[in-house]
Amino acid sequence: MLRKCGSLRRTDLGQEIQLRGWVNRRRDHGGVIFVDLRDRSGLAQITFSAELDAQLHKLADELRSEYVVSLTGKVIARSAENINPNMPTGEVEVEGQTLTILNTAKTPPISVCDEQDVDESIKLRYRYIDLRRENLQNNLILRSEIARVAREYLYAQDFLEIETPLLTRSTPEGARDYLVPSRVKPGKFYALPQSPQLFKQLLMVSGYEKYFQIAKCFRDEDLRADRQPEFTQIDMEMSFADEKEIRRLVDGLLAQILPLTGRKYPEQTPEITYADAVNFYGSDAPDLRFDLKLIDISDIAAQSQLKVFKEVVDRGGIVKAINVKNSDGKLSRGALDAYKDFVGKFGAKGLAWITIRQNELNSPIAKFFSKEQLDAIIARLQGEVGDILLFVADSKKIVHDALGKLRCAIARDLKLYDPQEFKFCWVVKFPLFERNSEGKLTSTHHPFTKPLDENYNENTLAAAYDIVLNGVELGGGSLRIYKPEEQQKVFETLGIGAAEAREKFGFLLDAFQYGAPPHGGLALGLDRLVMLLAGAESIRDVIAFPKTKSAECLLTEAPAAVAPEQLQELGLKTAE
Amino acid sequence: MLRKCGSLRRTDLGQEIQLRGWVNRRRDHGGVIFVDLRDRSGLAQITFSAELDAQLHKLADELRSEYVVSLTGKVIARSAENINPNMPTGEVEVEGQTLTILNTAKTPPISVCDEQDVDESIKLRYRYIDLRRENLQNNLILRSEIARVAREYLYAQDFLEIETPLLTRSTPEGARDYLVPSRVKPGKFYALPQSPQLFKQLLMVSGYEKYFQIAKCFRDEDLRADRQPEFTQIDMEMSFADEKEIRRLVDGLLAQILPLTGRKYPEQTPEITYADAVNFYGSDAPDLRFDLKLIDISDIAAQSQLKVFKEVVDRGGIVKAINVKNSDGKLSRGALDAYKDFVGKFGAKGLAWITIRQNELNSPIAKFFSKEQLDAIIARLQGEVGDILLFVADSKKIVHDALGKLRCAIARDLKLYDPQEFKFCWVVKFPLFERNSEGKLTSTHHPFTKPLDENYNENTLAAAYDIVLNGVELGGGSLRIYKPEEQQKVFETLGIGAAEAREKFGFLLDAFQYGAPPHGGLALGLDRLVMLLAGAESIRDVIAFPKTKSAECLLTEAPAAVAPEQLQELGLKTAE
Repeated sequence: MLRKCGSLRRTDLGQEIQLRGWVNRRRDHGGVIFVDLRDRSGLAQITFSAELDAQLHKLADELRSEYVVSLTGKVIARSAENINPNMPTGEVEVEGQTLTILNTAKTPPISVCDEQDVDESIKLRYRYIDLRRENLQNNLILRSEIARVAREYLYAQDFLEIETPLLTRSTPEGARDYLVPSRVKPGKFYALPQSPQLFKQLLMVSGYEKYFQIAKCFRDEDLRADRQPEFTQIDMEMSFADEKEIRRLVDGLLAQILPLTGRKYPEQTPEITYADAVNFYGSDAPDLRFDLKLIDISDIAAQSQLKVFKEVVDRGGIVKAINVKNSDGKLSRGALDAYKDFVGKFGAKGLAWITIRQNELNSPIAKFFSKEQLDAIIARLQGEVGDILLFVADSKKIVHDALGKLRCAIARDLKLYDPQEFKFCWVVKFPLFERNSEGKLTSTHHPFTKPLDENYNENTLAAAYDIVLNGVELGGGSLRIYKPEEQQKVFETLGIGAAEAREKFGFLLDAFQYGAPPHGGLALGLDRLVMLLAGAESIRDVIAFPKTKSAECLLTEAPAAVAPEQLQELGLKTAE
Repeated sequence: MLRKCGSLRRTDLGQEIQLRGWVNRRRDHGGVIFVDLRDRSGLAQITFSAELDAQLHKLADELRSEYVVSLTGKVIARSAENINPNMPTGEVEVEGQTLTILNTAKTPPISVCDEQDVDESIKLRYRYIDLRRENLQNNLILRSEIARVAREYLYAQDFLEIETPLLTRSTPEGARDYLVPSRVKPGKFYALPQSPQLFKQLLMVSGYEKYFQIAKCFRDEDLRADRQPEFTQIDMEMSFADEKEIRRLVDGLLAQILPLTGRKYPEQTPEITYADAVNFYGSDAPDLRFDLKLIDISDIAAQSQLKVFKEVVDRGGIVKAINVKNSDGKLSRGALDAYKDFVGKFGAKGLAWITIRQNELNSPIAKFFSKEQLDAIIARLQGEVGDILLFVADSKKIVHDALGKLRCAIARDLKLYDPQEFKFCWVVKFPLFERNSEGKLTSTHHPFTKPLDENYNENTLAAAYDIVLNGVELGGGSLRIYKPEEQQKVFETLGIGAAEAREKFGFLLDAFQYGAPPHGGLALGLDRLVMLLAGAESIRDVIAFPKTKSAECLLTEAPAAVAPEQLQELGLKTAE
């Protein structure tokens, strides 16, 4: 009977079975060869005894790591001293009866069964070996399961999976497109989609009502952070639904997915406005596993004698502080200096502190404040003996960035949360527009997001919502504009002229004129979701064949040079 | 209670319900406005009577085709004369109580509810309206269902869905690649995959054992036939499996899918060798819904006085014939002339015929044959009174092409089969190599296909197999080479030198050295499968946003010009 290695148990004792897999380890032990055989399900131990079958033992002696074999044998109990409680199959072993070597293997450049400190570039070059390792196999199995459960759930909610084109036109997400030259129309290009945004909206106009797609998306960005040039989204869109319904759909989806790693999605996911998220956590993707709220003390700072605080407030900046509870003695002076450098990376020119001790404040800045001012600060931050208060004074943006990142760094360093814990929140009421560095209004999400009022100015809020997990934006969505006049007004506010709007999105504006239903949706980043659920450190660990930060595949050596004739056919030349 | 339009039945009488959808038609009939409201599920009839509610009637009077509305009302029985037995909801109607116009619509350029003879380019330009039509909606719903059932089946067989990269390197299918210029490495290019072939083989080497993916693939070919630049495959690969197991897997998959359109996959799918398929049906994808076998009469022709036949045979060509049973009187002289022109398109210089009549043969060629020769021909073709025998003499390839296509054309014209019938077959034992027009050996499938013997010559057969439905290749697969030496020998036979092999597939050859299991797989063309199941005439009818034969999207106008800066960033110039 054909069996999976990892499935053998005491209940199988006496069974004659067949196994196929890879030699994980081979040991020779007093005339008996022990083989740990590996397949996708796990490991089983096989024995080949010289005493029982000298010829078979001789053949087994040829085995080396990563040889591929097919074998038969009888499941027997391990002797007491050989029982391995750390192995699911550790109570039994297989007494080998036949053995076929299906393929040999050279010694692999990276070990499959031992944890080694190997350079990632070697692992990526030999990805097919690294992919044999248990953690990567588990990650890809989990990824497949998540996709399966997501689809089952969405199908059950009457959603249709509809494929949208990959050879298409620029989409309006605003990142750089990957281009694909056309051979039939030399000098013209397709773009690979940054998302199926426009097509899914068109599908709503076409009456499909509930669409989803686990969709490949592409962005030609500099991959500083943990990003990939191609990534996968669980993309959804619904007609006639309001924001609550769409969020409830996503809540339901996550409630199905989380049990795959033994977790439970909360009955009620907290909701926080964008304004509060930025105000209290310095981020539109707040990590709620720990408190460390940003508290505004600008009013007090303005009254103090501390010039750097006063001047910042006078110039329209703010002063905010966080209270690191019970950290006196845990955060050394050196640590505080390092945090000062850390906030410097986000533009903050300094990091002031007050350590609250019995009957004294240890602080280089305390002397610039009156007793009343200090009392007010401590009261506002709910300071107690043993707490350290950390202050940043700067423009709003810098203070929020710096303290927002700092609270996460400190929480991690001081282990203020259980890394296994999952804390979700919905961030809602995003601004519709934001000013870019040139002072121009741009869309916070994209220009199809529905405004919550009809003022079309900087204060207009959007029917946009993000689902955030542990400080990571898992997905975002919005209700969309579906009336041509409203779309027109948003374009005008963005300074997108009629000609440009027509050139870029004419077909969508046209579509809205022929009976567009109210609609909205959301897209979840599958790579990030799998990464967080798997507890992986990088999305590269949940993608079978990832690319490096310079967007290369070290395995296939893509991108690569192409033949001059290929470029000629496309009507292209490489510039000198 | 929110309901779907198409779901209303007599059992709902008296219910107060809400519906949302599009106005399919609106008629004014003696003070009552009748609205056919449409959603994805179908149509429901709503009435707004001036007598019951004058204001509501006035609002309903504003409705036009394709307006989007939300309404409430009460389900009532239609009066006897209004019952529509052709409509699932035809026994009931909804007495409107409230009405909200969610969006208006201009008169659409193509009708949603009436069949019109509109140019396809208009339909593609206004795809979002055409997609509202019942047949396209049904096709896309079926497509979503087929993908759902396929995944469920493969998951149940312990397959994992694993995504492989789209920004990759040229794959070896031999068609033209779509290229994607790299910005980080100017002058270098990714290729969009023609299939996940190499990656799925690597996944087998990595021990995933059972992989599948519903994968987007790309080919930059001239789209003469019914092809698309991007298409979708149900792609599968298995380790340790033999040809039978893989074919049984696919049989099982189709057995799950066919019931979606009320069909049944056969218990036993006939198997035909490539040699027999070409010999008897002139095609490696034979249509078995009708007989019309190609019968070789070269030996008799060589003895005849008919110079054109004799000379062909002397030069190494062949003469074959088909017997169109009972066609005397059905195929006019004009039809035969047209068929002569038809076979001319495939290179045949003529089409000879013999009509068997009581006591005579009507034929321009009979006189060149002796009585014995004619008797022999008729006996071999099992000719009877009323039959017409059609002959082509030429090179093997031309005879097979011409008569293979002709038998299909005649069967269609004479309605020799039920167009609803599905006849599957497995075509097996393909040649490993074939000679191209320059006389060079090339791979019939791809260079990773496993040979059935070790001779590596023109007669070597391959462990390759195609699943064919009604003369259409639905999918193909093979066992793969998994030993580096064997792969090396195939490359040598193909004249692929060591350097070229290393340059193109080095990583695969490397991978085979580190413990590659025996493996094989198959890919089914999803677009064609949906097309055949839907009874659609073109794959464009089962793709949401298809491209034209010149690979354009008329809706979004892709491909399009891009900004000069974009090309500059990629280090590219358009050639003059």
